[in-house]
Amino acid sequence: MTSPLRLGIAGLGTVGSGVVRIVQTHADLLAARAGRPVTISAVSARTRDKDRGVPLDAYEWEDDAVALARRDDVDVLVELMGGSDGPAKAATEAALAAGKDVVTANKALLAIHGQALAEAAEAQGRVIRFEAAVAGGIPVIKALTEGLAGNAMTRVMGVMNGTCNYILTRMENAGLTYAEAFAEADGLGYLEADPELDVGGIDAGHKLALLAAIAFGTQVDFGAVELEGIGAITIDDIVQAADMGYKIKLLGVAQMTGRGLEQRMSPCLVPDTSPLGQLQGGTNMVVLEGDAVGQIVLRGAGAGSGPTASAVMGDVIDLARGVRMPTFGQPATSLRKARAARAAVPAPYYLRMQLVDKPGALAKVARVLGEAGISIDRMRQYGHQDTSAPVLIVTHKTTRGALDEALAAFAATGVVEGAPVAIRIEAV
Amino acid sequence: MTSPLRLGIAGLGTVGSGVVRIVQTHADLLAARAGRPVTISAVSARTRDKDRGVPLDAYEWEDDAVALARRDDVDVLVELMGGSDGPAKAATEAALAAGKDVVTANKALLAIHGQALAEAAEAQGRVIRFEAAVAGGIPVIKALTEGLAGNAMTRVMGVMNGTCNYILTRMENAGLTYAEAFAEADGLGYLEADPELDVGGIDAGHKLALLAAIAFGTQVDFGAVELEGIGAITIDDIVQAADMGYKIKLLGVAQMTGRGLEQRMSPCLVPDTSPLGQLQGGTNMVVLEGDAVGQIVLRGAGAGSGPTASAVMGDVIDLARGVRMPTFGQPATSLRKARAARAAVPAPYYLRMQLVDKPGALAKVARVLGEAGISIDRMRQYGHQDTSAPVLIVTHKTTRGALDEALAAFAATGVVEGAPVAIRIEAV
Repeated sequence: MTSPLRLGIAGLGTVGSGVVRIVQTHADLLAARAGRPVTISAVSARTRDKDRGVPLDAYEWEDDAVALARRDDVDVLVELMGGSDGPAKAATEAALAAGKDVVTANKALLAIHGQALAEAAEAQGRVIRFEAAVAGGIPVIKALTEGLAGNAMTRVMGVMNGTCNYILTRMENAGLTYAEAFAEADGLGYLEADPELDVGGIDAGHKLALLAAIAFGTQVDFGAVELEGIGAITIDDIVQAADMGYKIKLLGVAQMTGRGLEQRMSPCLVPDTSPLGQLQGGTNMVVLEGDAVGQIVLRGAGAGSGPTASAVMGDVIDLARGVRMPTFGQPATSLRKARAARAAVPAPYYLRMQLVDKPGALAKVARVLGEAGISIDRMRQYGHQDTSAPVLIVTHKTTRGALDEALAAFAATGVVEGAPVAIRIEAV
Repeated sequence: MTSPLRLGIAGLGTVGSGVVRIVQTHADLLAARAGRPVTISAVSARTRDKDRGVPLDAYEWEDDAVALARRDDVDVLVELMGGSDGPAKAATEAALAAGKDVVTANKALLAIHGQALAEAAEAQGRVIRFEAAVAGGIPVIKALTEGLAGNAMTRVMGVMNGTCNYILTRMENAGLTYAEAFAEADGLGYLEADPELDVGGIDAGHKLALLAAIAFGTQVDFGAVELEGIGAITIDDIVQAADMGYKIKLLGVAQMTGRGLEQRMSPCLVPDTSPLGQLQGGTNMVVLEGDAVGQIVLRGAGAGSGPTASAVMGDVIDLARGVRMPTFGQPATSLRKARAARAAVPAPYYLRMQLVDKPGALAKVARVLGEAGISIDRMRQYGHQDTSAPVLIVTHKTTRGALDEALAAFAATGVVEGAPVAIRIEAV
């Protein structure tokens, strides 16, 4: 048996204690698979005196994650603190500078500083692995970086925020309003301290940016992700979508187009018979499409102690086995800067608007669409509520540009109350 | 750029020509991801003069796969001939003996000779990779061997023969008889030369044995797989199952029990709302369950030129990158010989039998079940057809042993015509 791989674990929340538990309970299994023991030298967290459900006495304690990262008895920094800056970034940089590899579950850190950190790692001959940062326990980074490496990827998609999918599923199945479902998720502790990270699509957008960089060989560019949260979705939209055979999901889509890289994280309608449409509750799903393989669908728990720790340990065992992959699947200096293409790929859209009760109102709406070059696939007008009536329109394929033109023009018609809702229908 | 990784491709059928196509069309992509070029030195097949849709003039030709495997300008033998013995085995052994790595899509070869070949590879310091042997384009070997390596696996399951799933789906959706659906699949060229490899569960059983070896750290043991094909499934079973909320799938299940390793490939009822239940047509699905990660579901094309070549290339790029994994995820000499446990895990069963029209007939059937310790969850008797009536029974959880006892005892009652059908209901 060769020398052990020695971990320093920074962050002892639900994921950190899950990692400690696996190292403690599966020592023999890990050694058999890795070909050498995996051990923990030292740990670090904000508070020392706290019962984390696992014994920690055998490990050295560091108050400071940077000091942990620099310890001579640590081969790999396991960074589980979170946050795009602050201690997580400082400890990661310190570990790389000290010649240690890094395993992290930190999507924000890599979505924002991924290119610089990958370059720093490679300059030191070290690696950063981040399976746990995307879709929890699903080994999607490995599938994309390694398993599907023979493919030119054509599209990657995913439902990668379990909290949003929980809220949408509860609205769908229990008829809750958005506010009620949000409050329920909050009560269950599903929401981040800043809920906008979840419901605003930011957390899922970080994950999409990481997948896109690997899939298309481009520098990670979270700033180019078009973000739209789920806050404007109403129970009416969900009911209407269901009636037409669709579900509403917060769906991330990244696609290389003739005009550049399109990255979107937004509510989309997907067919209710598709794997994405059938996804319930907090589960995650990632869809990878390549020119040779066609469509691969991966499904599993997107969060939680065990699943996330499983992903961390997959990376740790890779390092113990000597598997050393560049952060984004190819040398960081070879990643291209992608031009950002906003909504380049046309799609049909679902529109819902409130039409005032005036003669010729519907004709005005139809004319606006016609002038924007948008043709109508299906339309429904419902009975009037007081002085206005809901109108639902499904368009044929159109560009987002043409649609935005029409949405702006509706205001000037004087017959549309408030802002219309527009949801893309994604072919999945 | 370092030296190229040079392939020798043995077998130029649909998969072989798919691999050649990827190497030719994605040279830059492969070099960027692998860190070095991937090239083809030589190829081999039964017939030289045949249009395979890809130019082969640039490669040396060998009539003999063993000679190909021994060439000095070949680093990796890509074995795509198939067959558990004969040229495939000879070429694989020759390649390992000559110090070359092997990438293969050959499930039969590894299911039967996997342990000996893995030991031979390790004795030479070489590796055998076989992602393409299981579930086509789905990177399931990688997910299990590497991504989930931090888990004690609890169960692996899969629908891994697209032809069988196609036949069952056609019976279900188009109301075809088994014979009609079989003839249709045959006409479409979906069946192996020996159809029993498909419909008898042998091909899928090979794949299950490979997954079980990795999941449980045991020597691959195809002989211990309990095999039951789909030939006895009738349209009645499919209709009755659907009526109770189930689909019938040819499902492989491997599970470590207190009594040993259980490996089954047999028709099972699964809930129609589960991912396995929703799987239509030729698509494959593998379900991996681990103690930390919970349940991971992988779905994709299980066959075809592009998907299978994608899997082959994933292995090739691993080798080009220097990733060298033991065949079954840990050194072959450390794999345990598992005791085979026949049907150790209890389950509910679906029973269908033809009951003769005699007073007390149903009571006799119920008594047989009771005497075997099997309790009845649901029962339906239908109207008599001539002198007998179909009876359907869903039991509570029972062992296969108790069930076999009851099945044997039915004959002696004199009220059951022919052999009853018994299909396990798997909790998925």
